[in-house]
Amino acid sequence: MLIATPLTLHFDDVLPLQSGASIHDYDLSYETYGTLNADKSNAVLICHALNASHHVAGSYAGQSRSEGWWDNMIGPGKPVDTGKFFVIGINNLGSCFGSTGPMQPDPDAPAGSGKVYGADFPVVTVEDWVDAQARLLDRLGIGVLAAVMGGSLGGMQALSWALQYPQRVRHAIVVASAPNLTAENIAFNEVARRAIVTDPDFHGGNFYEHGAVPKRGLRIARMIGHITYLSDDVMNEKFGREQRAWVTQTAAAPATGVGAYHYTTQDVEFQIESYLRHQGDKFAEYFDANSYLLITRALDYFDPARHYGGNLSAALARASASFLLISFTTDWRFSPKRSRETVKALLDNNRDVSYAEIDAPHGHDAFLLDDPRYMGVIRSYFDSKVANLMPAVEAAP
Amino acid sequence: MLIATPLTLHFDDVLPLQSGASIHDYDLSYETYGTLNADKSNAVLICHALNASHHVAGSYAGQSRSEGWWDNMIGPGKPVDTGKFFVIGINNLGSCFGSTGPMQPDPDAPAGSGKVYGADFPVVTVEDWVDAQARLLDRLGIGVLAAVMGGSLGGMQALSWALQYPQRVRHAIVVASAPNLTAENIAFNEVARRAIVTDPDFHGGNFYEHGAVPKRGLRIARMIGHITYLSDDVMNEKFGREQRAWVTQTAAAPATGVGAYHYTTQDVEFQIESYLRHQGDKFAEYFDANSYLLITRALDYFDPARHYGGNLSAALARASASFLLISFTTDWRFSPKRSRETVKALLDNNRDVSYAEIDAPHGHDAFLLDDPRYMGVIRSYFDSKVANLMPAVEAAP
Repeated sequence: MLIATPLTLHFDDVLPLQSGASIHDYDLSYETYGTLNADKSNAVLICHALNASHHVAGSYAGQSRSEGWWDNMIGPGKPVDTGKFFVIGINNLGSCFGSTGPMQPDPDAPAGSGKVYGADFPVVTVEDWVDAQARLLDRLGIGVLAAVMGGSLGGMQALSWALQYPQRVRHAIVVASAPNLTAENIAFNEVARRAIVTDPDFHGGNFYEHGAVPKRGLRIARMIGHITYLSDDVMNEKFGREQRAWVTQTAAAPATGVGAYHYTTQDVEFQIESYLRHQGDKFAEYFDANSYLLITRALDYFDPARHYGGNLSAALARASASFLLISFTTDWRFSPKRSRETVKALLDNNRDVSYAEIDAPHGHDAFLLDDPRYMGVIRSYFDSKVANLMPAVEAAP
Repeated sequence: MLIATPLTLHFDDVLPLQSGASIHDYDLSYETYGTLNADKSNAVLICHALNASHHVAGSYAGQSRSEGWWDNMIGPGKPVDTGKFFVIGINNLGSCFGSTGPMQPDPDAPAGSGKVYGADFPVVTVEDWVDAQARLLDRLGIGVLAAVMGGSLGGMQALSWALQYPQRVRHAIVVASAPNLTAENIAFNEVARRAIVTDPDFHGGNFYEHGAVPKRGLRIARMIGHITYLSDDVMNEKFGREQRAWVTQTAAAPATGVGAYHYTTQDVEFQIESYLRHQGDKFAEYFDANSYLLITRALDYFDPARHYGGNLSAALARASASFLLISFTTDWRFSPKRSRETVKALLDNNRDVSYAEIDAPHGHDAFLLDDPRYMGVIRSYFDSKVANLMPAVEAAP
C-alpha cells in the first residue's frame, strides 16, 4: 500500500499574478509518490480540479478511507505507475487544503491582528497556478516534466503548462477538459457563486471573523455542481424516479406496488433529492466559500486563445509537448466537441497528438472512475510514450 | 388588436385533491378570446407552465407591453385563430396571478385573522389542476373541448386532460413536454427549491406575516431555470464569453482588442452573468416563493404511467383524443426522446398521432418563440384537423 505524506514548502519571494496583483510569503502543500530518478527525468505532475487537493494517491498512515482522489489511476502498478514515475501533487493557491488561501493569515494585515485573507485573497488564474507549481518544481530540482496531467480544471493546467513552459513539458495529458468555458459553463458557476455570495452568513467574504460559515450557499453550489458532473443517463440509472425508502415503508402502497407519494414541497420525496442534499451537506462541512469563488473564477477566466483573437491554433503554436487528450461521450459539462477543438488546434500546428473519446455513461465524473478503456489508454500512453522517451530527454531540443 | 379582460369565478364547493386533502371556497382567474359558437364546439383550452398565467393572448386595454405569454401563437389570424376558436386561459390553483394560492387568505384560518395559506396551501398536482379547469368549463357550459394545448408543464396538463376526461377532449396538443420528469429534471427543481427554502427570509413558507420575501432564493431558482430553458448553442450565440461592456470601456484593452479582465469573483465579468442576474431580480419581484415550490412539485409528481407499473402504453390506453406532439431538437430539459416515448405509447394504442420534431437552436424556450416551421405545424393542425372535424362533434361516440 502506498503511504502518502503531506509536505509543505514556504516561498518568501513575490509571485506576480495575471491580475497585476501579487502574493508573497506563501505556502504550497504537496505530496510525492515514487522515486525521482538520477537524471530527474521521470517526474509527473498531477493537477487537481475544483474541490480536490495535493493528496492525489496513496493513503495516510493509520487513516482508513484516506485514499487520494486519483488513487485508482496512480500508484504501484497502476496506469500511472509510481514504480516508474515520480508523481507530484500540489494544492493550488487559493484552495483550502494547506496551500495559502483565503483561510490563512494575510501577511499584509496589521501585525498581531491575525486577520485572514478572506475576500482580500487575490484572484488567481490557471496561469498563476502553473507559475506557482513551476517554482515548487524548481525547489525540488526538477527542470523538465516527463508529463503533466489533469482532468477538468486540472486538464486546463496541463494545457497551460505546455504553453507557459513549453521546454519543461514532454507530455501533456488533458482529460475531460476544454480550451475555455462555454457561456453555459460560466452560467452554472455564476449561479453557484451567487448562492454563496448572497448567503447572509457570507458577510462579503469575511465570514471567518463573524464566526459564521455560508453553508446554505455552499450546499446549493455543490448540488448544482453535482448535477453537471453526472449525465442524464447515469442519473436515471442510479436514481430515476425512485422514491425515498421511508415513504414506501410507511405509506400505504397501491396494488401496483408503487410507493405512495408523500405530497410534500419541502421534504425529500425522491432519492435523487436525498443524494444531492447529502452531497451538499458534506461539502459545506469542509470546503471554503472564498476558495469556491476563486476556483470557479479561474475556470471562467481560462482562455488561452483570448490574446490571439479567439484563434486557438495560433494560441497553441507555442506548445512543443506531445499530447494525449481524452473525453467522455456523455460529458455535457466538457463535451467531446471541446476536446476536439484542442486536438484540431494542435494538429494545425503539426503537434504529436493522441485522442481517445471514451463511450462512457457517467458524464463528467467519468474522468475519476474506473472505465477499463480509459485506464487502458492512460496506461499504454505512459508505458509506450512517456516511459520510452525518457532516455532521450537530455538530447531533446 | 385583441383586448384581454381578466375574469374570476368563485367556487364554493369542495375540490378533492390527489393528496387526499381538499380545497374549498376557491377562485379561478381566467380569460377568454374569440366567441363560443352556438353548439359550443370551438373551445380551446390553453394550459400554462411554471411562471405563466391565464393571460395567454391579447393585451390589457390601455397597458402597453401587456401581451399575453402566448400572444404570438393565439389571436385573430394567428396559428390558433381566435376568429374561429373560443380560447380559454386559466390560472392554476396554487399559482400567484389571481387564482387561489399561498398568498390568499386561508378560509380555514380563524375568522378575522386574515391569515394567508402560506406553507399550508395543499400540494396540488397536474391532475388537480385539470379537475379544477374542468369545473370552470362546466360553469362556462363547455362540455367538449375542440382542443387542449400546452407547452412544457402545460403539455403535461394537455396529456392529463386526455386521460382524465377522454370524452371531453377531441384534440390534445402537447408541446416540448414529457410523460414524466427525469432524475435530472427533478434535481434541478430540487436545487431551486432548496435555494428558496433555506433562504432565511422564507420563514418555513410563512414569510408574509414576517413582512419578508425570500428574494435570494427566488433569484437563484430563476437563474437555474433560465440555464435549463436555453440550449448551450443559443447561449454561446447570444452571450458566448462576451464581457460586460463597462469592463472594455474603462480598462486598458490589449492590442488584440480583447477586453481586459476585471479580475473579480463577486462582480459581473461576463454578459451571461449580467443576463442571469437580471432575470433573477425581475422574477423575485413578482413570483411567489410558495407557488414556485408547489408548481415545481407538480412537475415532479406528474407520472401517468406510475399506476401502470411504469408502462406508458397501458397508461395512455384511456385516451381517445387525436394528438399533436411537438419537440425541439436542442431542448435538453424536455428532449425529443421524451416526446417520442409519448408518441410510441399512443401508437401502441392505435391512436391518431401527429408528431413534429423541430430543428430549432433555442432549447426549451423554443416553444414560446416564433419558429416559422413550428408555427406552421400548429396552424395547419388547427386549420385542417381541429377546425374541420368540428361539425362532426355531435356524432362522435
